[in-house]
Amino acid sequence: MDKAGHYECPHRVAIPPAKPFLHSLSSGLKETLFPDDPFRQFKNQPTSRKFILGLQYFVPILEWAPRYTFEFFKADLIAGITIASLAVPQGISYANLASLPPIIGLYSSFVPPFVYAMLGSSRDVAVGTIAVASLLLSSMLGKEVNPNENPKLYVQLALTATFFAGVFQAGLGFLRLGFIVDFLSHATIVGFMSGAATVVCLQQLKGILGLVRFTHATDLPSVMRSVFGQIHQWRWESSVLGCCFLFFLLLTRYFQSFINCNFISVEIRSLFGVRNFGPNSKRRPYFFWINAMAPLMSVILGSVLVYLTHAEKHGVQVIGHLKKGLNPPSLSELDFSSPYLTIAIKTGIITGIIALAEGIAVGRSFAMFKNYHIDGNKEMIAFGMMNIAGSCTSCYLTTGPFSRTAVNFNAGCKSAVSNIVMATAVMITLLFLTPLFHYTPLVVLSSIIIAAMLGLIDYEAAIHLWKVDKFDFFICISAYAGVVFGSVELGLVIAVTISLVRMLLFVARPRTFLLGNIPNSMIYRSMDQYPTTNSVPGVLILQIDAPIYFANANYLRERISRWIYEEEDKIKSTGGTGLQYVILDMSAIGSIDTSGISMLEEVKKNLDRRGLKFVLANPRSEVIKKLEKAKYIETIGQEWIYLTVGEAVAACEFLLHTCKSNPGTGEFDAQDSV
Amino acid sequence: MDKAGHYECPHRVAIPPAKPFLHSLSSGLKETLFPDDPFRQFKNQPTSRKFILGLQYFVPILEWAPRYTFEFFKADLIAGITIASLAVPQGISYANLASLPPIIGLYSSFVPPFVYAMLGSSRDVAVGTIAVASLLLSSMLGKEVNPNENPKLYVQLALTATFFAGVFQAGLGFLRLGFIVDFLSHATIVGFMSGAATVVCLQQLKGILGLVRFTHATDLPSVMRSVFGQIHQWRWESSVLGCCFLFFLLLTRYFQSFINCNFISVEIRSLFGVRNFGPNSKRRPYFFWINAMAPLMSVILGSVLVYLTHAEKHGVQVIGHLKKGLNPPSLSELDFSSPYLTIAIKTGIITGIIALAEGIAVGRSFAMFKNYHIDGNKEMIAFGMMNIAGSCTSCYLTTGPFSRTAVNFNAGCKSAVSNIVMATAVMITLLFLTPLFHYTPLVVLSSIIIAAMLGLIDYEAAIHLWKVDKFDFFICISAYAGVVFGSVELGLVIAVTISLVRMLLFVARPRTFLLGNIPNSMIYRSMDQYPTTNSVPGVLILQIDAPIYFANANYLRERISRWIYEEEDKIKSTGGTGLQYVILDMSAIGSIDTSGISMLEEVKKNLDRRGLKFVLANPRSEVIKKLEKAKYIETIGQEWIYLTVGEAVAACEFLLHTCKSNPGTGEFDAQDSV
Repeated sequence: MDKAGHYECPHRVAIPPAKPFLHSLSSGLKETLFPDDPFRQFKNQPTSRKFILGLQYFVPILEWAPRYTFEFFKADLIAGITIASLAVPQGISYANLASLPPIIGLYSSFVPPFVYAMLGSSRDVAVGTIAVASLLLSSMLGKEVNPNENPKLYVQLALTATFFAGVFQAGLGFLRLGFIVDFLSHATIVGFMSGAATVVCLQQLKGILGLVRFTHATDLPSVMRSVFGQIHQWRWESSVLGCCFLFFLLLTRYFQSFINCNFISVEIRSLFGVRNFGPNSKRRPYFFWINAMAPLMSVILGSVLVYLTHAEKHGVQVIGHLKKGLNPPSLSELDFSSPYLTIAIKTGIITGIIALAEGIAVGRSFAMFKNYHIDGNKEMIAFGMMNIAGSCTSCYLTTGPFSRTAVNFNAGCKSAVSNIVMATAVMITLLFLTPLFHYTPLVVLSSIIIAAMLGLIDYEAAIHLWKVDKFDFFICISAYAGVVFGSVELGLVIAVTISLVRMLLFVARPRTFLLGNIPNSMIYRSMDQYPTTNSVPGVLILQIDAPIYFANANYLRERISRWIYEEEDKIKSTGGTGLQYVILDMSAIGSIDTSGISMLEEVKKNLDRRGLKFVLANPRSEVIKKLEKAKYIETIGQEWIYLTVGEAVAACEFLLHTCKSNPGTGEFDAQDSV
Repeated sequence: MDKAGHYECPHRVAIPPAKPFLHSLSSGLKETLFPDDPFRQFKNQPTSRKFILGLQYFVPILEWAPRYTFEFFKADLIAGITIASLAVPQGISYANLASLPPIIGLYSSFVPPFVYAMLGSSRDVAVGTIAVASLLLSSMLGKEVNPNENPKLYVQLALTATFFAGVFQAGLGFLRLGFIVDFLSHATIVGFMSGAATVVCLQQLKGILGLVRFTHATDLPSVMRSVFGQIHQWRWESSVLGCCFLFFLLLTRYFQSFINCNFISVEIRSLFGVRNFGPNSKRRPYFFWINAMAPLMSVILGSVLVYLTHAEKHGVQVIGHLKKGLNPPSLSELDFSSPYLTIAIKTGIITGIIALAEGIAVGRSFAMFKNYHIDGNKEMIAFGMMNIAGSCTSCYLTTGPFSRTAVNFNAGCKSAVSNIVMATAVMITLLFLTPLFHYTPLVVLSSIIIAAMLGLIDYEAAIHLWKVDKFDFFICISAYAGVVFGSVELGLVIAVTISLVRMLLFVARPRTFLLGNIPNSMIYRSMDQYPTTNSVPGVLILQIDAPIYFANANYLRERISRWIYEEEDKIKSTGGTGLQYVILDMSAIGSIDTSGISMLEEVKKNLDRRGLKFVLANPRSEVIKKLEKAKYIETIGQEWIYLTVGEAVAACEFLLHTCKSNPGTGEFDAQDSV
């Protein structure tokens, strides 16, 4: 018999002992910032070993290089050459998209892969530039500085932005804040990527139509005005060439279906445009190589064609002279004092986070398949250092693009050495082969970009979102519309805001459920979900779905009152036992704050005034600790807190039936129930 | 025997039927925007009745006026005169604080109470200006326009800001977005109010020390510089007078302890500075009147003193000439075209939301005690209309201040008629008595303000927060420091941001628990909270505390892996049954999005690869619906989803023990367990 003399309760709710503040603070911080426990391997090691492990932790090449074999090298060599064949045309194309000189695209495939090979922990990521970040660079910086009128300042700004992107990325990693990238939800990325791909394709109309002047805005209306405002400038030579190459590239894209990426989650695949999978997942090496080599073949074919037909004199624009030689140092180009510093920082942060999101997601997916572990925060440091080093050697923003990484994986790479091979191949190109690109027509670059982008416009993923989660679909469409009709940044900001509002709404407007008894059991479940459940006469059982915080305290108070008067109305109209007990199932209440406790106090007072008894079931450790500190347990009475709804109902029923005349003094025998 | 032939499961998890999209959208919107079901009374009524009810809904006076009795009027008359005695000195003081002409403070106690009496649904709220909003007005507008150099423009701006505050308040109410006010958490308000009170007291040093020039900044360093930069300007006459009156007022404040507010939740009381409660809750009318009349007495005493001693010629500043007559119309003063429009809108929104927060909280608390219901959104419309009307009749921002409302309640008010009485009394003052204030010394006004503000600096509430919830304490201190060392707006923004981050962190870093069996039962609870629980050999039972959203999907994947390898490490070191089943208790998972489903898919694949079986327990309706749509149930197998952890464990144990040689084909008899 407990101190209140009511009955014996079969189980007690435990109140965990209070931990010292500093202890709970440090364990909370650890859980927030080091959820994956990265220093586990350092435990119980001598100091010298700790030093070596620490060095290997920050420079992973030291860890795997000693175990590297010649077999691995053969595989990496083939993979490296394959991705180099992709890196050269893509590098030039994306630099063009970023309104940067084409040579910077090549530079960017030289230094960063070396850095990543030292610091990165993924064995599959192939480093390179990405279209979306290139477009963002040109649209954000282009608003402030015209790249045609002031190319030197523009390049300086782009390098400065890259530097800040690197600092931001490395900073996130060092501060273990990598989870910020997680706030780009799947739905946001689908909508954003599709929108960005649409915008990038629209921008290519410049190249395809052979236009010389073009808007720097990226929104659909501006582009359409720009295209249809100068119909007389359209060049059919350009268009014909462009369409032919586009057809060729799309044809080879079909063979991408034979790239083996089936293991990657639908989410990641749909994010980066690998959709048409082969009938089975066996690799068809022959087709794979066709797909991987197609961009380089297009460039070679296009250049030869222009060289032979002298099409450059008939309105087909070509790349022109490319300077021979390796990356010039560019530390002195970084400009921290110009009036454009703010825009450089802003651009750096936005492009940096987009690049991170892609790089980290790609690295994680492949690591998961090959069953090794990647520390997201460490990868961020690697990407950040790579971009800081890049910005000092005339490279702009790089990351681990999905397309290149998938090709790397399918070509059989074993380690980051394939990046070194690629970088070496690009180095050779820079040293000796740049003159070959003199006659490469810009329209081929546009075709390469369009072919890569079309796969990213992912209506199938949007349909899937609509089917599974309407809110995610709404986020996706908002991101898309924001990017296409507003600007790339705007779309991102809108989508992230809506995603956050969704999370806040979950807390601000938690669902409350009426629970009923599942026949022939002591289980209580939501009457909505289980229509066969029975209500318990005289007892109202409510469940709340979210933590009780300031944002929902007022709502919950009103909602609980409404449940009670609705129940009383029902009893009035149908007859039956009057309401006597209100049981609150706290199983799903993960946390509570002072506003929430205050709300519970008011509910208790309100129920007291109506002559109803307030009973709690299954408060969780976080909640019961705070209720105790706020002395709410004394207010409500320890004997009215039960371990399960079943036990709470049993106690209420016992009191209802046995001691109706004198409630609160009956005795209740232990009962092995849940 | 179910279709998989495993065993018979005692209970099935129900998948609620999918509702049509529009239906669930509208019910979701209704739950979000109309949680209190305000139109319940309109149901099943004839149209004419609906019209009358609608009219009464928007103009509550129509509802209660017919039932108004003479008895009520007697009570309201006394209460009204009492609050008028408070309204006159407070009105003048707060107008002074807002850097507005004192007469505007009196105007503001005339028109708005009339409007509120028509539209408001609270019977206790007494309308008036509040110190914090007055200070905010002067600090935000004062940055742009100097009230001494350009008084006309400043008044215009203040009226325009009041207009926008009204539009914003009424707009929130009409759009049913009143819950935005809930985002000012208890902790935020405690910190913010204490900070604002500190700042207001500091500003009064101007009056107490008789300084003529004073900084317009509100932060501590600026004020200190301003005070100690002109030591030679301090006037001892002023200081002595001020200290005497302050002492008198603080003495009478002691009798406030006899104001009967014990019924009001500690939260609300601590918010608005009613702390020292009488030994019992019986009213002591005599002391109560002393407290209520003290400010008016101070003003009269001070004025008489100055008149007799001609202190105004010895450095004691007085109010001076006040224009006789009622509020002049000021519609033409509203200025929507000036370059200061943005700051007027910003000021309007911030002061409007602060005023709303106080007015709504006060109205709700008293309504709860007198057991009538207040619709927050309807109150917002009333406050908004009152301020719109006020801005057209030379009034600045008003709301329902706690101090005046508490006095109104204690003086025995019965309805909003006490507001009408107060307004009438103020009208008489405006028409005939303004010359009496000519000799009122400003220092008395400062004393009145300080006496009112000191109670708001609520260190006790801060200590309570520290004890119960460290994070709330941190929010509170941030708000305080932001207000005192930065600016009033800054403090508010910081505190709201931190509060939101806390909510986001709850979702982004949910807690995961290991569950164990409570001895002699089939109940499974967190092993942290219940140290006596036993783990089940070969089975790992995890519980997640929050919805699975994009923001935590990656974290949860890593955390689940970590639980598994930690468990495997433990088994390796201690021996025992190898891990075979991982049960995820989904009881506390209120929702899931597509990123979350994708995470579960990856966890399933990962477990499959390790040869572990993934089992779900008690998925809730929202979650199971989405899992079904995403075909995840097919992936995992319907037979691996259980209604309770107990049943899931029983099934796993059965398979572990009975059919170790050939798992997955055993038969499991129904068992009445939970």
